[in-house]
Amino acid sequence: MANSKYEYVKTFEQTTTLLPNTYIVVRVDGRGFHKFSTKHDFEKPNDRAALDLMNAAAAAVMKELPDISFAYGISDEFSFIFERSSRLFDRRESKILTTVVSTFTAYYLHLWSTFVPSKPLTPLLPSFDGRVVLYPSTQTMRDYMSWRQVDCHINNLYNTTFWALVQRGGMDVTKAEEKLKGTLAADKNEILFSQFGINYNNEPEIYRKGSIIFCDVSYPYHQEVPDPAALAVSKNSEVEISKTQKEKERKRRSKAEIVVQHTDIIKDDFWEQRPWLLCGDADR
Amino acid sequence: MANSKYEYVKTFEQTTTLLPNTYIVVRVDGRGFHKFSTKHDFEKPNDRAALDLMNAAAAAVMKELPDISFAYGISDEFSFIFERSSRLFDRRESKILTTVVSTFTAYYLHLWSTFVPSKPLTPLLPSFDGRVVLYPSTQTMRDYMSWRQVDCHINNLYNTTFWALVQRGGMDVTKAEEKLKGTLAADKNEILFSQFGINYNNEPEIYRKGSIIFCDVSYPYHQEVPDPAALAVSKNSEVEISKTQKEKERKRRSKAEIVVQHTDIIKDDFWEQRPWLLCGDADR
Amino acid sequence: MANSKYEYVKTFEQTTTLLPNTYIVVRVDGRGFHKFSTKHDFEKPNDRAALDLMNAAAAAVMKELPDISFAYGISDEFSFIFERSSRLFDRRESKILTTVVSTFTAYYLHLWSTFVPSKPLTPLLPSFDGRVVLYPSTQTMRDYMSWRQVDCHINNLYNTTFWALVQRGGMDVTKAEEKLKGTLAADKNEILFSQFGINYNNEPEIYRKGSIIFCDVSYPYHQEVPDPAALAVSKNSEVEISKTQKEKERKRRSKAEIVVQHTDIIKDDFWEQRPWLLCGDADR
Amino acid sequence: MANSKYEYVKTFEQTTTLLPNTYIVVRVDGRGFHKFSTKHDFEKPNDRAALDLMNAAAAAVMKELPDISFAYGISDEFSFIFERSSRLFDRRESKILTTVVSTFTAYYLHLWSTFVPSKPLTPLLPSFDGRVVLYPSTQTMRDYMSWRQVDCHINNLYNTTFWALVQRGGMDVTKAEEKLKGTLAADKNEILFSQFGINYNNEPEIYRKGSIIFCDVSYPYHQEVPDPAALAVSKNSEVEISKTQKEKERKRRSKAEIVVQHTDIIKDDFWEQRPWLLCGDADR
Repeated sequence: MANSKYEYVKTFEQTTTLLPNTYIVVRVDGRGFHKFSTKHDFEKPNDRAALDLMNAAAAAVMKELPDISFAYGISDEFSFIFERSSRLFDRRESKILTTVVSTFTAYYLHLWSTFVPSKPLTPLLPSFDGRVVLYPSTQTMRDYMSWRQVDCHINNLYNTTFWALVQRGGMDVTKAEEKLKGTLAADKNEILFSQFGINYNNEPEIYRKGSIIFCDVSYPYHQEVPDPAALAVSKNSEVEISKTQKEKERKRRSKAEIVVQHTDIIKDDFWEQRPWLLCGDADR
Repeated sequence: MANSKYEYVKTFEQTTTLLPNTYIVVRVDGRGFHKFSTKHDFEKPNDRAALDLMNAAAAAVMKELPDISFAYGISDEFSFIFERSSRLFDRRESKILTTVVSTFTAYYLHLWSTFVPSKPLTPLLPSFDGRVVLYPSTQTMRDYMSWRQVDCHINNLYNTTFWALVQRGGMDVTKAEEKLKGTLAADKNEILFSQFGINYNNEPEIYRKGSIIFCDVSYPYHQEVPDPAALAVSKNSEVEISKTQKEKERKRRSKAEIVVQHTDIIKDDFWEQRPWLLCGDADR
Repeated sequence: MANSKYEYVKTFEQTTTLLPNTYIVVRVDGRGFHKFSTKHDFEKPNDRAALDLMNAAAAAVMKELPDISFAYGISDEFSFIFERSSRLFDRRESKILTTVVSTFTAYYLHLWSTFVPSKPLTPLLPSFDGRVVLYPSTQTMRDYMSWRQVDCHINNLYNTTFWALVQRGGMDVTKAEEKLKGTLAADKNEILFSQFGINYNNEPEIYRKGSIIFCDVSYPYHQEVPDPAALAVSKNSEVEISKTQKEKERKRRSKAEIVVQHTDIIKDDFWEQRPWLLCGDADR
Repeated sequence: MANSKYEYVKTFEQTTTLLPNTYIVVRVDGRGFHKFSTKHDFEKPNDRAALDLMNAAAAAVMKELPDISFAYGISDEFSFIFERSSRLFDRRESKILTTVVSTFTAYYLHLWSTFVPSKPLTPLLPSFDGRVVLYPSTQTMRDYMSWRQVDCHINNLYNTTFWALVQRGGMDVTKAEEKLKGTLAADKNEILFSQFGINYNNEPEIYRKGSIIFCDVSYPYHQEVPDPAALAVSKNSEVEISKTQKEKERKRRSKAEIVVQHTDIIKDDFWEQRPWLLCGDADR
């Protein structure tokens, strides 16, 4: 039986291809995690095991998809940043997006019992939605990363103060909310310090800075990104060169260790010290 | 600390909204399932436990997302069809797509040990990609369903014959491939019958027809879809009416049982006997 | 000199293909026509020559693009509706959109001196922007048409009353605006009748109803759209049949006269009496 | 009469917003210009009046849309490049695309009689289609420009040789095509020189290089693009600064003369000597 009579329905498929030479960001978010975290008794304001599980799931995604240069996670969200020159799945949006979301979900479920052994999962199960955002320049991509880290700081300072008032100050949640309404960062720092003896800057970095995950390529790292002048000269043979470079780079990465750090990614230091993270940046 | 300096990066997000009044189909496909099924010793040509697991995961997705009218699965793929008038997530493509894919993945992982207790999962874990296709009319949507069921038939007849030759006929895979090259359905039926005494039509329906999943609403079902004449008269108050109808419908569904059947969905009978499956069809 | 070094830039082109089996509507709007009409002394509330020019330009577009079934114009806007089954330019959005807009603009400029001979054009020249909207069913497409005609009525009743107050009642524009603020249709009809002896229903239909343009195929028209029952039977040979039908239809249209009418397109009468306008409707 | 009943049809409009911080290129192409140029006796291989008309129409578009930084034209096509930071029409694709195409068409029609006074236009009228392409970096945008100029060279060398063979060598067109099949640039140069005494490099630059159009801002031009170090320091106040800068820039441009040049745009010289053309480049 030929299938030709119905095959015309394939013409209704519409494929979105992501603009070349842009940073692809896939951000994954927990669905209904407020409810989920309550049901599973997550510690407040931060549940270390749950964060470690997020990080482990993200690292697993990165191992399966080596075109991802780095990832940044806070709370129940994770952003995966693909190298600018990635041609994964011909840059088809749906394929890239769903592969990341599904792989992340699979490892989150699979690793749950390792990280949270005392609380078995029952439906409604944890799940994640996701979206793709493109950034056309290194500056805009870094500003995206900064945006997420600033959000981490704002939320964590608020949550730390809020739960201190509730858990240690005995305030009910409504009163705590009211007390914090309109307060500035300095006010919250002051509440923490004067009422609870907490110096916010001594709180664990994983809570204050979030988690950045990347491949720690073996040193010494030779800066292989050609400077603009060299680029201009070598244009004719560029395509061949960069292919070889990328192959080398890929092999090096596959041997490299995936590391998780909790550090400032807003200032230039982080990026200047890890030049391979932006190695696709001089690409056309 | 205000976040305004970096918030401009949010303007790079681009949202695709799915055209209203069209059937939304989300098709989920196993990633690398050829390798995965080999690694986990799936029975050939069909592994009943694996199919039952797919169906259980799909049914769980339908329970969480009641805007899905029905779903159809074969092998490692599942198609979810939303009712034409669905406004789920304001019809944002990424949100709908990733929610289905992630929820399906979560239940597949979670239910694995129930359906396949003897084979523990280890990385690489199973995962799924997905895509969205829109069908603007009932006829095109039904042709999509027919396309998948014809594919099920073509693939299953081939696989049944191929594995009979290999498993019972002692042929090696290359020879079996060669023997089947260019054969018609009649040829394969003949091989099955004369060499192995298999009447293909007696093979289990789940393998020959695939699985259709839907809510079996409690009978008697009152056909509430207005006929065109009535529609013309009642246009002015249609919006209000349909809202109430939909609410009722939703409640009825939530009480209804989700059933899995293995039956012909190409002919009209299936659809005519379950009018509620196309109940959004008379919508504008 | 080979061009291969730079040809990679072609991969940045992204093509949007319009969903098959939907009505394509291209709506063209005058850019800055408030200013343009003032500069060229258009008569208020309606300039007959300018409307006739719009209609002539639209008819010229339809002659060049026979996949357009009909078009509807009011004021400085025109909507072109393509038959549902059109495959023009493989349904590439940009190509369809810009071809309509450019052809319309060209004829508007070219025919200006014929319709408005006393007022030569000087920069800023008239120009038009455009957009594409898809409607997946005949009902939604007809509701679009109704929406435009209701808008025509609302705007024309307002404008007719407003300019009567100003031109014949000697009111200044601010006072006229204030007087009409919050008034209902009945109030405006009353003002027109009691103060100026104008029965709005006797105003020219071109102002009250707008202009619908279509091919008047030679009678008797044989309804060739198969009824659903016939369709079900003939499915197998449908593609071939419809190709021949369409070819015939195309030839008939090319001989047919393009007519401009000013009539009600909200009620069913208009469509029932011209069945060929929706002839692609039974298509899948 | 309220219009609310039908207004739901507006929800079917889908707006594509162009990714921020990318170069927007709108390329306009003559529709059926092979036929059109034959009908209107364009000189071969190049019709100077027709090219001047193209340039005049393009310059008029640039005057109406000051967000266009420069434009490049060859034969019957023109590419308009918007500054990277442009927010024209909120970067709505259809609006930008159709405005350029319609304005270009309007001026082409309007100026025809000035540039080609001896050949009155009659239907089929000239018209243009268009498309939008985004380039995320200065290098990719410049490679696009280079691609078009290399194309200009390849086509013009071929056409010059072809028409020399036909017009001066008395060859028929089929023979001339055959003779040129598979020839390299050197071969064509040799044919031109040895058979017709033509040194290709002495051909008019407008034919060999195409036409680049831009605003010649009044010298001395102060490079206002901040260097990266300055940018890093001034980030906080950047938005305000750049607004003022842009306003100044805009005023300067509005006084500036639009110039047409026929020069090499592949090498760096052109761009280095006109730094204002890429002035939006340091933007995020």
